[in-house]
Amino acid sequence: MSLKRILDAESVVIIGASRDVTKRGYQAVRTLLSDKYEGKIYLVNPRGGNILGLPCYRSVLEIDDPIDVALITVPAKLIPSIIEDCGKKGIAGAVIIAAGYGETGPEGETLERTLMEKAKEGNVRIIGPNTNGFINFKKNMNLVGVKDAPRGDFALLTQSGNMALALMNEARDHGLSGFSYYVGVGNQIDVGFDEYLEFFADDADTKAIVMYLEGIKDGRKFIQQAYKITDRKPIIVLKGGRSETGKKSARSHTGALAGQYQVYLSAFKSAGITSLDNPEELFPVAETLSNMPPIKNNTVAILADGGGHATIASDLLTDHRVGLIELVEGTRARLKKLLPDTASVANPVDVAGGTDSDPELLAECAKIILEDDRVGGLLIVGMFGGYGIRFAEKLKFAEEAAAHRFGKIVAAARKPLVIHSIYANANSHAIEVLRHYRIPVYGSLNVACKCIAALSDYGAYLKNRYTEDRFVLNPGVGARKEGNAIISKALKEKRTSLMEHEAKELLRIHGIPVTSDFLAKDADEAARITEEFGCKVVLKVVSPDILHKSDVGGVRLNLKNGNAARQTFVEIMDSVREFDPNADIRGCLVSPMVENGIELIIGVNNDQQFGPVMMFGLGGILVEVFKDVAFRLLPLFEDDAKQIIVEVKSSVILDGVRGKRGVDKKALCELLLKVSQIAQAYPHIEELDLNPVFATENGVVVADARVLLKHDAACSM
Amino acid sequence: MSLKRILDAESVVIIGASRDVTKRGYQAVRTLLSDKYEGKIYLVNPRGGNILGLPCYRSVLEIDDPIDVALITVPAKLIPSIIEDCGKKGIAGAVIIAAGYGETGPEGETLERTLMEKAKEGNVRIIGPNTNGFINFKKNMNLVGVKDAPRGDFALLTQSGNMALALMNEARDHGLSGFSYYVGVGNQIDVGFDEYLEFFADDADTKAIVMYLEGIKDGRKFIQQAYKITDRKPIIVLKGGRSETGKKSARSHTGALAGQYQVYLSAFKSAGITSLDNPEELFPVAETLSNMPPIKNNTVAILADGGGHATIASDLLTDHRVGLIELVEGTRARLKKLLPDTASVANPVDVAGGTDSDPELLAECAKIILEDDRVGGLLIVGMFGGYGIRFAEKLKFAEEAAAHRFGKIVAAARKPLVIHSIYANANSHAIEVLRHYRIPVYGSLNVACKCIAALSDYGAYLKNRYTEDRFVLNPGVGARKEGNAIISKALKEKRTSLMEHEAKELLRIHGIPVTSDFLAKDADEAARITEEFGCKVVLKVVSPDILHKSDVGGVRLNLKNGNAARQTFVEIMDSVREFDPNADIRGCLVSPMVENGIELIIGVNNDQQFGPVMMFGLGGILVEVFKDVAFRLLPLFEDDAKQIIVEVKSSVILDGVRGKRGVDKKALCELLLKVSQIAQAYPHIEELDLNPVFATENGVVVADARVLLKHDAACSM
Repeated sequence: MSLKRILDAESVVIIGASRDVTKRGYQAVRTLLSDKYEGKIYLVNPRGGNILGLPCYRSVLEIDDPIDVALITVPAKLIPSIIEDCGKKGIAGAVIIAAGYGETGPEGETLERTLMEKAKEGNVRIIGPNTNGFINFKKNMNLVGVKDAPRGDFALLTQSGNMALALMNEARDHGLSGFSYYVGVGNQIDVGFDEYLEFFADDADTKAIVMYLEGIKDGRKFIQQAYKITDRKPIIVLKGGRSETGKKSARSHTGALAGQYQVYLSAFKSAGITSLDNPEELFPVAETLSNMPPIKNNTVAILADGGGHATIASDLLTDHRVGLIELVEGTRARLKKLLPDTASVANPVDVAGGTDSDPELLAECAKIILEDDRVGGLLIVGMFGGYGIRFAEKLKFAEEAAAHRFGKIVAAARKPLVIHSIYANANSHAIEVLRHYRIPVYGSLNVACKCIAALSDYGAYLKNRYTEDRFVLNPGVGARKEGNAIISKALKEKRTSLMEHEAKELLRIHGIPVTSDFLAKDADEAARITEEFGCKVVLKVVSPDILHKSDVGGVRLNLKNGNAARQTFVEIMDSVREFDPNADIRGCLVSPMVENGIELIIGVNNDQQFGPVMMFGLGGILVEVFKDVAFRLLPLFEDDAKQIIVEVKSSVILDGVRGKRGVDKKALCELLLKVSQIAQAYPHIEELDLNPVFATENGVVVADARVLLKHDAACSM
Repeated sequence: MSLKRILDAESVVIIGASRDVTKRGYQAVRTLLSDKYEGKIYLVNPRGGNILGLPCYRSVLEIDDPIDVALITVPAKLIPSIIEDCGKKGIAGAVIIAAGYGETGPEGETLERTLMEKAKEGNVRIIGPNTNGFINFKKNMNLVGVKDAPRGDFALLTQSGNMALALMNEARDHGLSGFSYYVGVGNQIDVGFDEYLEFFADDADTKAIVMYLEGIKDGRKFIQQAYKITDRKPIIVLKGGRSETGKKSARSHTGALAGQYQVYLSAFKSAGITSLDNPEELFPVAETLSNMPPIKNNTVAILADGGGHATIASDLLTDHRVGLIELVEGTRARLKKLLPDTASVANPVDVAGGTDSDPELLAECAKIILEDDRVGGLLIVGMFGGYGIRFAEKLKFAEEAAAHRFGKIVAAARKPLVIHSIYANANSHAIEVLRHYRIPVYGSLNVACKCIAALSDYGAYLKNRYTEDRFVLNPGVGARKEGNAIISKALKEKRTSLMEHEAKELLRIHGIPVTSDFLAKDADEAARITEEFGCKVVLKVVSPDILHKSDVGGVRLNLKNGNAARQTFVEIMDSVREFDPNADIRGCLVSPMVENGIELIIGVNNDQQFGPVMMFGLGGILVEVFKDVAFRLLPLFEDDAKQIIVEVKSSVILDGVRGKRGVDKKALCELLLKVSQIAQAYPHIEELDLNPVFATENGVVVADARVLLKHDAACSM
């Protein structure tokens, strides 16, 4: 594992060491010295001399001792030759601070290519560029120059120096913990998120991994790696570049392709990654997930010493779909005995002033609630830790006693407790005691509620965690000779897509129900086929030159008889020719009209980050207007197929609404699995689009299909 | 204005004054003395004696001097007789701390009634009960006992003592301002939110009104009052009890009927109230709205000194639908001159380290951006105020200079600036300077973005603010003799609803297009009418006993001819009789089937808080599954009608999708306005339900209508 020699380096050289106190080349030296880095420090400056008592070499090649890592603080253009030297010197990794590579345009891209060539030749791994460096807190190896970041058990990976700084400040001021490592991954032109994850997976000092990411190099490797970790260590991610403007910003910032956020979300979810949108939730959620057991069965109780906070917490937890369960009668009776008549012992429990003169009662209430078998976790909201400030100073002793009891209650119950207090940042002794027991306590009600929601989601994930090995692609599995023949023919004709009847034939070969159809070469044949069907038909133009048939007037529905079909055939030819006089038109496909059933859309795309991804949605306005779709990385497993169906909001329609019967979900799942298999089986398939598919109580049928091909598939046929 | 004598009281009596330091009856006396209340203080305790040097009277009636306000700290049951004494003594208002009234059940309700009788007899206004009191910061009149709450220009109204405490702590620790008044409104059994608003409307020391509310007594008065204020003073509200669990919690907390949140939101929006869900946004948004000019035309720029924050800010502002506009070429050129090559001068502007050694550049960039005519407001994100901490201490002087420049730039540009800084709470001098200029600066990126969004929404509201006098009801306007006759007949027959054909007749009288229909008394008549229509028909049972016709098999669609109609008539009769053998069945309504058009639902309900409210949505699954509806308080004005249509997400469907033409929106608006008029014209109408209505490019037609009646309408016919 090459990263170990880099991140746990026993020697570092600073190339670009400087005497100017405002320069990174000075600050890095100062910090390594003042933080008492456990390894050896070497400096390189072409002008020689001494900096902070250390001699400067003119080049790394002048240094005799072996060196693990180089921190390079010089401008971008000078770096390729430096990397060449690093390679000769046998340096394992180089941290490049400078920006000005691929993110800035063509010139930068060329520079980046040169840089990577040198790195590969010399076997030097690159961290960055466009990074502020990394920190190994265990070895006091601080290449970033940030002061006072606390040591602890989170590995922090970011694509933003300021985000890292914000989180370090937060940890220092209010945190339960600090960091084992920090890596500013920068533009990831070499080492990417997935390799860092692999390293932290096995690091005994890392309990959780916190990330700010804008783009991933190889999404599938990332997800695969994350999946191997999340059963033991939570991974918490904030993804920047969710919006169009955000994506543009990310591109100019780290050159990252921010990708489609919905696909990211779906991938994160499959791998058990906790994903957040609000940066201030990142650190608290990481603290909570790494210090508290997850919530089982989404069953939470609220204990409040004020009705307003109880009400708002109920609202916020409901927003997060957290289940607020009823307390059993026995629990309510025990609480009633302790509390004044005006208290509410439903969930939320509101002590209604009952603890104002005795905050220790709050711990007793918490104990009773957590002893309720149905309760999976507890949120306390209000002013715990501030009774001594709000009411009478002597109450602080009762609060301290309560805080110690909370610690013991949580340990005994093996259920999580999160505390919101408007005095969280007053740092009273009671709050310090809570932090000693690693009980999360936050001043923001919103953040505390999000922590509870994350515990509940993580609990649900662990319960349903897949057992199979996920996210791997097995190209070639399940391809059929007849299918290969269809695709080969199109490739030989230099086409980039199959025609509809070919696409449907490919599906049919794999056992997918498709509407029957016949190719009519002229109007009379169309009429005859229609009469033979004896029902309403659809006419669709067949041409290798026309991919979007509707756009050129090439699709006509609801034709009642042979005469209508005959006339329509002619109209279609006219319309298509008008759009493209030279189109190679083979005729029209005649299919029976599907009049019943719920319209569905199923697609497979090659996502830039994640490779093949399936999209599922209910057709028509639900996809077009409401964008109500769900995604899944291929390969699809049976549970994925079931989940992707219920993940769309309009899924209830499939269960039957407005007097209609529900659809055959078993058949639908089978269809989705087969589509996944086909997409993987033929490496030349670039995109698959089944639209529309009709589902009824009796099954499913594909009414139209589009298959795009690529000629440069990695795997030949 | 009776509240003035209470909230600006020149004398106060504490009834229940106590020597016990943990009791409110002691704390209130201590605080009034230590805060140096400008008025006179009297104490009542039946046992007499002295407390903190003040003599105790045995009853208010023993006191000779006139008294404005009583603070009552004794238990609920003792209070009615005390209020009787207060009335005799001529006291204007009583603040009741105790809980235990209507919110606790029937016994409490009886006590509440007795209390209010005494209060009305004696002309004593009640604040609370179940409140922690009020504070007049200008007179140092602190009846709550909170310490160190800062004086300033916000009036704070809450239904939660803890929420008030949280906001006061926040103002003290990080605020630009403090409070002019605080009122814990409690259960509002007498004085409600609307009266407090009326008072603060005219208070010169109040610049903004901040509220936490769970329920309103009279929503219409509240909204009317708020509307009169929001053109001069922003009102910022957090509504507790949005969710079902939250509603229950609110009920047990303040006895408030939390109502339907969507209706609240719609009412808030109409009145220009800024509404928030996250409590930590409440105070910052209030600060921002009261210190910064609103944003015009939803055009915002971001200036960042770090790419990660730029990206996240873009995402968060996009979540809030804030428009991030492009900077004009001239602006970009000016920025390019100042900044390094790696900087991005698009929006967001990312200085890419260009200010690391000279933070004053940030002010220069802000000036250039705000001088761009297209830019309506600026968000700066990153670490301003912390350069001196992060990089080199000497930079703090440049930061201070920048902070002064920010103050001047904002004043000159008359455009708002909000600053996010990860050092916001480090309280460096630069941050203090920003606060001196009342420039909002927050440590939470999420909060800063919400402040920008609030400025943009408020700007849009002020621009489109209605000129008419809103929210008043004018019952009786527009009622017609024929309409009154239909309703009278139903009322005389002791019915609580109109039958479908009566309801449609009522609509027709007012010029609303309805489907034509005939009442068939038997199967043969149904057949004959069907043949006369000569198209597909619908049969619907007519019975004053059956309100939900579909539920009893009383509606059958798509009948093709007389025979089908004849047979179906019989089937309907059988089905309905099976459900209700004694139903008074008048026959079936035969109507032509409406086969084209987009299905709509239009309803008018009497909301418990807000009175008559219209609901609009697209029929079918869009209402049933997606709950895609919009609300408006009646009366509807023309702009309301236009807005309610575009407020539903599925509104785009009305513009034409999937090859269908758009609908006649003018006809639809007219229909909505007429429905509003009808609902107001007849005081006996309790509920109106037009479902379905069909809209096409040629107009609208109501296919079914339901009208519920009330017998006890305030206004007789």
